Amino acid sequence: MRNVILDCDPGHDDAISIIIGASKRSELNILGITTVAGNVEVDKNTRNALQVCEMLNLDVPVVEGAVRPLVRESEVAPEIHGDTGLDGPVLSPPEKKKSPGHAVDFIIGEVRKSDEKVTLVPTGPLTNIALALIKDPSIKDNIDEIVLMGGGTFGNWTPAAEFNIYVDAEAAKVVYESGVPVTMFGLDVTHQVIADEAVISRVAEIDNDIAGFVKELLIFFAETYKNHFGFPGGPIHDACTTMYLLDPEMFTFEDVNVTIETKGEATYGMTVVDLLKTTGKAENVKFATGVDEETFWKIFLDVLASYGEADA
Amino acid sequence: MRNVILDCDPGHDDAISIIIGASKRSELNILGITTVAGNVEVDKNTRNALQVCEMLNLDVPVVEGAVRPLVRESEVAPEIHGDTGLDGPVLSPPEKKKSPGHAVDFIIGEVRKSDEKVTLVPTGPLTNIALALIKDPSIKDNIDEIVLMGGGTFGNWTPAAEFNIYVDAEAAKVVYESGVPVTMFGLDVTHQVIADEAVISRVAEIDNDIAGFVKELLIFFAETYKNHFGFPGGPIHDACTTMYLLDPEMFTFEDVNVTIETKGEATYGMTVVDLLKTTGKAENVKFATGVDEETFWKIFLDVLASYGEADA
Amino acid sequence: MRNVILDCDPGHDDAISIIIGASKRSELNILGITTVAGNVEVDKNTRNALQVCEMLNLDVPVVEGAVRPLVRESEVAPEIHGDTGLDGPVLSPPEKKKSPGHAVDFIIGEVRKSDEKVTLVPTGPLTNIALALIKDPSIKDNIDEIVLMGGGTFGNWTPAAEFNIYVDAEAAKVVYESGVPVTMFGLDVTHQVIADEAVISRVAEIDNDIAGFVKELLIFFAETYKNHFGFPGGPIHDACTTMYLLDPEMFTFEDVNVTIETKGEATYGMTVVDLLKTTGKAENVKFATGVDEETFWKIFLDVLASYGEADA
Amino acid sequence: MRNVILDCDPGHDDAISIIIGASKRSELNILGITTVAGNVEVDKNTRNALQVCEMLNLDVPVVEGAVRPLVRESEVAPEIHGDTGLDGPVLSPPEKKKSPGHAVDFIIGEVRKSDEKVTLVPTGPLTNIALALIKDPSIKDNIDEIVLMGGGTFGNWTPAAEFNIYVDAEAAKVVYESGVPVTMFGLDVTHQVIADEAVISRVAEIDNDIAGFVKELLIFFAETYKNHFGFPGGPIHDACTTMYLLDPEMFTFEDVNVTIETKGEATYGMTVVDLLKTTGKAENVKFATGVDEETFWKIFLDVLASYGEADA
Repeated sequence: MRNVILDCDPGHDDAISIIIGASKRSELNILGITTVAGNVEVDKNTRNALQVCEMLNLDVPVVEGAVRPLVRESEVAPEIHGDTGLDGPVLSPPEKKKSPGHAVDFIIGEVRKSDEKVTLVPTGPLTNIALALIKDPSIKDNIDEIVLMGGGTFGNWTPAAEFNIYVDAEAAKVVYESGVPVTMFGLDVTHQVIADEAVISRVAEIDNDIAGFVKELLIFFAETYKNHFGFPGGPIHDACTTMYLLDPEMFTFEDVNVTIETKGEATYGMTVVDLLKTTGKAENVKFATGVDEETFWKIFLDVLASYGEADA
Repeated sequence: MRNVILDCDPGHDDAISIIIGASKRSELNILGITTVAGNVEVDKNTRNALQVCEMLNLDVPVVEGAVRPLVRESEVAPEIHGDTGLDGPVLSPPEKKKSPGHAVDFIIGEVRKSDEKVTLVPTGPLTNIALALIKDPSIKDNIDEIVLMGGGTFGNWTPAAEFNIYVDAEAAKVVYESGVPVTMFGLDVTHQVIADEAVISRVAEIDNDIAGFVKELLIFFAETYKNHFGFPGGPIHDACTTMYLLDPEMFTFEDVNVTIETKGEATYGMTVVDLLKTTGKAENVKFATGVDEETFWKIFLDVLASYGEADA
Repeated sequence: MRNVILDCDPGHDDAISIIIGASKRSELNILGITTVAGNVEVDKNTRNALQVCEMLNLDVPVVEGAVRPLVRESEVAPEIHGDTGLDGPVLSPPEKKKSPGHAVDFIIGEVRKSDEKVTLVPTGPLTNIALALIKDPSIKDNIDEIVLMGGGTFGNWTPAAEFNIYVDAEAAKVVYESGVPVTMFGLDVTHQVIADEAVISRVAEIDNDIAGFVKELLIFFAETYKNHFGFPGGPIHDACTTMYLLDPEMFTFEDVNVTIETKGEATYGMTVVDLLKTTGKAENVKFATGVDEETFWKIFLDVLASYGEADA
Repeated sequence: MRNVILDCDPGHDDAISIIIGASKRSELNILGITTVAGNVEVDKNTRNALQVCEMLNLDVPVVEGAVRPLVRESEVAPEIHGDTGLDGPVLSPPEKKKSPGHAVDFIIGEVRKSDEKVTLVPTGPLTNIALALIKDPSIKDNIDEIVLMGGGTFGNWTPAAEFNIYVDAEAAKVVYESGVPVTMFGLDVTHQVIADEAVISRVAEIDNDIAGFVKELLIFFAETYKNHFGFPGGPIHDACTTMYLLDPEMFTFEDVNVTIETKGEATYGMTVVDLLKTTGKAENVKFATGVDEETFWKIFLDVLASYGEADA
């Protein structure tokens, strides 16, 4: 079982990512879930994470993290995720409580004490991960891999920048330059896994509570993506990370250099991906270029269905 | 007949662009050819332009322009175009002489005196066009359109920037912000028209001097693109501009805002194309998104073949 | 007699600079006056230059130049110089006409044809000078020195940038990196020559038309500087250039590297002066650090008085 | 007694600053000393802080902090402070041990639990302070003032940037934009308190161990400042902060806006001080413009002499 920390800002696709990652099929040892300001304010993200855990009977610590980016002012995206950050399903307030302490210290502590290397799985802005690497750079030696959703060769928040990276590009710079192996699911691949009506119909056919919850998330997410971007459904960006941990074979990758732009006027927060190898800079990222969509959705639906099984 | 000025740095694809533009089929009234530092130094580009004119019996003024970019130092690309800028065919020195004066003044003069609006067709760095717009902004009113090759949503000189724009991003900024309509053929579309072995074979079947010259250009260009980028042939980037003037229908376009990045560290010279309309900025560019490849090559070969006709 | 071209945007202190430069005492051979957009729009600056020439019986070409900066949009300073750019004295429209052509070509032409090297004396934004150096870099060899007013270790338009450099920092970058020797009068020294009430009184005692005109300029200028900056009078910035040409001994200088900042958010247009030699970059500027104020004003008043002499 | 935390990178002038601050005359309640990477690596700075405490019999926690800046790579200044960071005096290894934990958490903890507001006194890069403000923004409400040494209207590490700010300009941006009142001692004032031979002679006349230690620090510091900058002695930059806490009256201040430049090429890390009020931005800094040197040195020497008194 791989030791992982899910660092997130749920968020519809974050929630789905947790659901995938928490399933038996994923065979992950989730050390904890940490939250960060991103899609909405961090306290809302924490509440959403607690609700998802409660629904999944997932008994892991949920630790709240950064309320703001490293250097810039906060920016949130309620137009995509609604005011709660998880609009759509009607949820009762969680009984589960967040654990004390700060996500940064939780991450540092877990990585330091783990016998085997830990995989960090950030699906929000990289503030917590960067802060951990700044506060205790020695943890690098016990991090296996950082499997993240963010960036791409194009943007969705600005023409050049994806939301997670844009919100805290300085944090991204710290992470990408840290020397820790980064496996990156950017918009190039996440825009290939759009949960359109066909997908939602198939989810709707699965008869268990989790699938029902996912269905409602997907319906809301499809709506905002249609209105905002004219897409046929919502790309379940963040879930690529846990789907990869479950079965890396369905994705294709290229080893590339990725540099984070923090100075540009129109390109702040861009992940500059050197696919044509024009820079001569060392490769620091395993960049997801594609996914076998059929396999992706098959596994995805199987995982949701598994939640109805006795021992899921 | 549309009044055009071809502003270029030939350059294999520039040369091919002139050949397309000068053909009867194009029905263009070429007011002159202006040269600019780009693929190689400006004097070499001028010599190459003169040689192409001589070969085509094209009796138009060739006027030399900017020896350097507006603000940055010069940068050239002999690794793509060879030392002469037009390596491949063996050419004797041209007898045709360049016209006196500077390209900037030629452009200003022709635009001012033309009864009908003039179309500028830059296929190199935008230095001359920018200088003309700076020196005499009033010419804007008599420019129909700037049909250019440059930029794209990704780069070839850096991961973010295409060569023509990178070499003089400040000039590009002046042009894109000028208010003159810009029709833009960037790498997104030019990488769809790669002259691979199949294309070269078909060119080789055409029995006239111009086609023979083009064949030799394409062979050299294919070689450098294979070595440098691993492409199956050379994209005839610049020729998209004159192919468009000949038959705009084969291309698809989207009206978008394009902003030139001049501050970024890793993104200097990027044309930031707002395809998802995230910026809310006014559309200033007709951006070529695709081309009907079959039609493109058919017309391309037809034009080359027409040079063997009596009245071509 | 030193060959000079006065490139300016009159402007109160530009006007005074011309008056100093045109006096017999200066022993300058003024090849012409070129104008540039700066304190106010270029056509107003041209009219003001013509008026000053007319008043001085100065029979030299006045050639209009750049209407806008190289890359940025225009910015003007009517709050300092009034709507006309030369508010204060009541002036009748000049009968003298501007010469045909563009300042850039005038500068290039005069420099190329001059038997002896030419000194350029820009006291506005450096657009014309930069354009000349871009259009014909070969003129560098026949330029003796560029004696300019601009920049400093602090600013007056922003905390970091002086107006002339801020308005066209890209042009300044071209000039400072050109390799031509630059003698620079920045705010460090120009703020030492403030025409306060005492100075104005002494000017008022001189009984000739030119001194009367200067007095009115100084009164208006003192007023705006009091209101805007709380200064006891207006620094006659630009006049430092011609005062230097008349008598360089009154100034102290340091050879330094000066780099133009064009990327900074809060420092765009700063002349970064390496007084402590921390950069190791080559010295490219003779930077005026101080002036003997007593000598300065004595000579200044003498020159004004000389206009009342028979042969002035 | 004012509650203060001294956050530093000793460093000759940091050490002197602690000595001033720890004296009875200062009437400060030092909650602790935190260290940060700066003049030299953080572990060396911690050792130096421990040594200074030991020498002073100062029984406060010394807590180690950031080993690196927020975003940039580390940069140190051994050419100014020697390899140990405190070259000059021969010191035996301290017996005092650093306290456990990280400076960031110490700062947050002390500020949160203090009944009265705490004054932070950073005399190194602002990494610890920024990290504390990022990790727990709520501490702002219980911080009285941040009294810092850094920046100025000119630089000493680059022409535009002072060392402390340059090393971590992103941290400085966080601190200056935090809304907490900043009292800033930049180079403008610290270069007015140069410990030249005359000062060192007067220190040498004081007969106690602390003064002897300070004398040796000043001798070494004078040497590096002579060699590196041609100064007649070392400016005891950091000590301005504790001298101010001891007697604010000797300094003059101006309320200004200060913006941290993080994008500039030649100006990265500049504190852009709006002395002429050109930006219209709100004042966020009490900027030290001058000091009564005579009073400064008198108090300074008195404090050193007080260490020889029975109850000092």
